[in-house]
Amino acid sequence: MRDEHPKLWMELHVKNREKLLTSLRQHLSDSSRSLHGFVLLQGGEEQTRYDTDHLELFRQESYFAYLFGVIEPGFYAAIDVATGNSILFAPRLPSEYAVWLGEIKPLSYFKEHYMVTTCCFSDEIESVLQQHYQCSGKPLLFLLHGLNTDSDNYSKPAQFQGIDKFDKDLTTLHPILTECRVIKSELEIALIQYANDISSEAHVEVMRKTKVGMKEYQLESIFLHHTYMYGGCRHCSYTCICATGDNSAVLHYGHAAAPNDKILEDGDMALFDMGAEYHFYGSDITCSFPVNGKFTSDQSLIYSAVLDAHNAVISAMKPGINWVDMHILAEKVILESLKRGHVILGDVDDMMASRLGAAFMPHGLGHFLGIDTHDPGGYLKGLERRKEPGLKSLRTIRDLREGMVITVEPGCYFIDALLLPAMNSPETSKFLNQEAINRFKGFGGVRIESDVLVTATGCYNMTKCPREMREIEAVMAGAPWPAQKI
Amino acid sequence: MRDEHPKLWMELHVKNREKLLTSLRQHLSDSSRSLHGFVLLQGGEEQTRYDTDHLELFRQESYFAYLFGVIEPGFYAAIDVATGNSILFAPRLPSEYAVWLGEIKPLSYFKEHYMVTTCCFSDEIESVLQQHYQCSGKPLLFLLHGLNTDSDNYSKPAQFQGIDKFDKDLTTLHPILTECRVIKSELEIALIQYANDISSEAHVEVMRKTKVGMKEYQLESIFLHHTYMYGGCRHCSYTCICATGDNSAVLHYGHAAAPNDKILEDGDMALFDMGAEYHFYGSDITCSFPVNGKFTSDQSLIYSAVLDAHNAVISAMKPGINWVDMHILAEKVILESLKRGHVILGDVDDMMASRLGAAFMPHGLGHFLGIDTHDPGGYLKGLERRKEPGLKSLRTIRDLREGMVITVEPGCYFIDALLLPAMNSPETSKFLNQEAINRFKGFGGVRIESDVLVTATGCYNMTKCPREMREIEAVMAGAPWPAQKI
Repeated sequence: MRDEHPKLWMELHVKNREKLLTSLRQHLSDSSRSLHGFVLLQGGEEQTRYDTDHLELFRQESYFAYLFGVIEPGFYAAIDVATGNSILFAPRLPSEYAVWLGEIKPLSYFKEHYMVTTCCFSDEIESVLQQHYQCSGKPLLFLLHGLNTDSDNYSKPAQFQGIDKFDKDLTTLHPILTECRVIKSELEIALIQYANDISSEAHVEVMRKTKVGMKEYQLESIFLHHTYMYGGCRHCSYTCICATGDNSAVLHYGHAAAPNDKILEDGDMALFDMGAEYHFYGSDITCSFPVNGKFTSDQSLIYSAVLDAHNAVISAMKPGINWVDMHILAEKVILESLKRGHVILGDVDDMMASRLGAAFMPHGLGHFLGIDTHDPGGYLKGLERRKEPGLKSLRTIRDLREGMVITVEPGCYFIDALLLPAMNSPETSKFLNQEAINRFKGFGGVRIESDVLVTATGCYNMTKCPREMREIEAVMAGAPWPAQKI
Repeated sequence: MRDEHPKLWMELHVKNREKLLTSLRQHLSDSSRSLHGFVLLQGGEEQTRYDTDHLELFRQESYFAYLFGVIEPGFYAAIDVATGNSILFAPRLPSEYAVWLGEIKPLSYFKEHYMVTTCCFSDEIESVLQQHYQCSGKPLLFLLHGLNTDSDNYSKPAQFQGIDKFDKDLTTLHPILTECRVIKSELEIALIQYANDISSEAHVEVMRKTKVGMKEYQLESIFLHHTYMYGGCRHCSYTCICATGDNSAVLHYGHAAAPNDKILEDGDMALFDMGAEYHFYGSDITCSFPVNGKFTSDQSLIYSAVLDAHNAVISAMKPGINWVDMHILAEKVILESLKRGHVILGDVDDMMASRLGAAFMPHGLGHFLGIDTHDPGGYLKGLERRKEPGLKSLRTIRDLREGMVITVEPGCYFIDALLLPAMNSPETSKFLNQEAINRFKGFGGVRIESDVLVTATGCYNMTKCPREMREIEAVMAGAPWPAQKI
């Protein structure tokens, strides 16, 4: 049992609120607007499954979690723009709650625990905000409403009885709060590092226990158990992808209709994309390795191509670098390797011009990581998605800035649905060595994914898994990790 | 690794459909209605978390699962009442699905795998049903709409483009289909038995590994890992309740706001209510034991009271017995034991008349178990909930019938929110030995829960956990389980 869990520093959320307040006030000043009104957010509610009373395990909405860190459902919260005071609104629980669900905590508990200025009941929002308002006229509410550019869904602005007695601003808050989330604070980085440490350790545990004949989900179970048992991580950042053999060419394998249920076979590559979450902050890590513990020459070829891309990107990352260029760099390194391995033929620049890279790596190079696995803020207002294959899948096209945490996850896959059209297209067929492509049919794919913090002068890889082939083979054969220095 | 997983018998769902068809036709005949039209159900959809693209792991809606066993989201399905033909409607997936989510399976795959008469696309429902209809006029759709008496929610009838070209019957299907689910078939029983076997085993594993100083969630993690790793159970029937010490008096502990995070202390009782699900069918098992492996005399007193109640109910259960009587029997056995232990004083019949039992066991004795943990059908039309404390919490008040699977879960808890009012009420205070009640402050509670099948002549306990105190102490000290015969 590890006992070095980071404390659930509620100061992290206090600082997040201060950061928002500074940004919002600056924005209002810059637009010559009054520094009055309230930021008002509605936290998540518990959900039952269909018509039953089966309750899904509640996980707080991410913007609410960012600002207030509240683990309980049914809350609202406000920040007074004028004074900076923060107000939590707790649900008024029925007396039976104490019998079925636990102690009914007093408002003073929430005030102290969540380090807010005051805590009231959620049926008092209207009156409390009216009391706090120091100006004449209707108080203004800054509500959260904006597009998530990964899901194309809009966040749902808070709703409560009496909201018609307020003026509403639906446009100001979302971009400012989203941008606060893009640049991580020291405390946020510490939590992401913790999630990375325990998840890296769990990936190593999985590598060690992987054996031909197991079921993919058994490796998922080992990962989940390690991160919960020894790391206290009740949630994962996302459903585990435990793909072996051909399944490793299915980018989001592991969902209900493809439920990690294949038997591991000798000669399979494994692609395990799994990350735990701790106090809302996540990790997102992929390890690829041969299930029998020894790379074949074909496996080495593809693995090296991807690792070289991963390392080239991390070597190049620093503030000011554009993420599209990093994607292109990764593609180029992979194509060069495939050319050296005689899988493809011809001039790499010509291949790049024909977007051949996207046939081998259809997804984007990486995405922001934080309270959401695909943390928001990838497209600032005015930035438009690229249209080209591969590039259109990028979850951000921004320049890097210090404090961003972004995944670096190049991959190389043999996906029939992409390679068959590429072989039939006059644009791309000339580059493909059909014999080699046929040899790799059923190979699946390789992805190597690390979580990388952009620093003032470069970047820092927060993920600590064996990456070199000799390291992986050694760990799978029982060597200690981290590797001991002689 | 166990390899005796039950096969995912799709015949189970074929038989479920036949059973529904027989009941529905009988009902229509009895009401002199035409034996035409279609049962039409809509399966569940994948859900994203709030505005993000984070996908929750999909679990099929239970009525749809019962009839069709489909694990994939986005389906519809129909049964032709006239011919008995079954028609699955699969979503038409975009070509990118093959890159991101896996092979796009042909309709023939679903037809064969799910053993239906035919499979079409879900955008063809209207035309396909019109083609199949052999009468004149608008075809009639039997849609699922009815009250879940545990959640007070209504099931959502199917909706699709073109539904206005059909007549709709919203009242006939729900009670008939619900009643089909109440009486389990042999294959259903086999799956519930499997879920019970692996969950019983996991409870024993948890008992063996429980040590003072651990965190409650570590025991949750051990349970989850055992049932997934060795049983292939990806889902649990419900969020694990891993309560120790005072928390064991919180009936539904373990949710997000009370997340199994206490440290186990010497002298604590543990109450672990955990059950795995396999191919939709669940288990629901509670074990209570001292975390240090040795019962104190106070722990023995309460544990024996509950075990005696558990055993008395199972001894009395058989077809025709009313469930309210079983609840009252359990209460009475517990009160008699508490009286023998001088926790309460006076005449037990008088206590029963004053509903004192509900101060110690506020929940119902048990509930139907199947595809839902609280399987529906507890209240037939016309049956009304009792009003009295304890009895009003019963999830069914029906007479037992062969083939019902019901939990037997008596408990005895020391809940301040109930005992303080009981001590202050002239009705009940006279029965309470205040000194003893004070001694048990902070004790928490004991629950013993088994899943019991009603047979032709009695019942069968499907749960195989150590129940006797000497068995529990032996298993916790390392003895084998099931206990070896000498």
